[in-house]
Amino acid sequence: MKRALSLYSVALLLSVPTLHGQPAPKAESASKVAIRRAIDAQVAAWNRADIPGFMQTYEDSAETTFIGLTLRKGYRPILERYEQSYTNREQMGKLTFNDIEIRLLPAACGETQYAIVTGKFHLDRTTRGEAKKDDGIFSLVWRKDPQGWKIILDHTS
Amino acid sequence: MKRALSLYSVALLLSVPTLHGQPAPKAESASKVAIRRAIDAQVAAWNRADIPGFMQTYEDSAETTFIGLTLRKGYRPILERYEQSYTNREQMGKLTFNDIEIRLLPAACGETQYAIVTGKFHLDRTTRGEAKKDDGIFSLVWRKDPQGWKIILDHTS
Repeated sequence: MKRALSLYSVALLLSVPTLHGQPAPKAESASKVAIRRAIDAQVAAWNRADIPGFMQTYEDSAETTFIGLTLRKGYRPILERYEQSYTNREQMGKLTFNDIEIRLLPAACGETQYAIVTGKFHLDRTTRGEAKKDDGIFSLVWRKDPQGWKIILDHTS
Repeated sequence: MKRALSLYSVALLLSVPTLHGQPAPKAESASKVAIRRAIDAQVAAWNRADIPGFMQTYEDSAETTFIGLTLRKGYRPILERYEQSYTNREQMGKLTFNDIEIRLLPAACGETQYAIVTGKFHLDRTTRGEAKKDDGIFSLVWRKDPQGWKIILDHTS
């Protein structure tokens, strides 16, 4: 899917040539841009009430873990939980993320495979279903797999 | 510091020779045992009201992050926050961890450097200070640095 770059992504790309005197961390910027674009795609999917689209940012694995009030493990149970907690477009509302910070976890050899993302979410909505929280804080662990950067752990509180 | 192996650690060590027909994952077991021992040391430090000892399991870095009700960054601010939230032995109480799961994050080359730990905590105590929660769920990201396995992100809710 072709997507417009977010302002943040453009800023990251533009920042590369300005780093004089040290090797331009192109791979680092590319990973950060890829993660930022995945986050943007997730928000866009949420805001068109597309939970399967939103879930595409999670790794399709039995090990993928979501921690909310309880711990849930596996791509399919996490998807089903989202569908139970948000049964219509009004309950999903409009999602915004703030204070997003992307921390790449360098590898001793080879390219960076893991990253941590922290941030806050806000849901602008008038109706709630099972999920009661409109605001919260999250930490995500990402892994770069052949399909791109994917979330392997989501802890939202 | 010489420490007795926990039952869990012994079970992990004993499990290695029973894995017939495939290479014994000694490095994996060693990493899991090391992390489990670090967790056990952390609980022991907490239960002798030794916050600096408890903090030794965190990476001493400005990037180390703790998420509770808010996000706090840096080893020193996290230590100070613990000291403010728990001002005496009674407020610290007796800590137990349950449902501990250690997930090593394999590296494409070289040895495993990162791991995720999830679990639940319980504080048995009669007095509370600023920290009100006696029960919660946590996710930790660990990195193997020259000093051993250390926590670089703690999200507790």
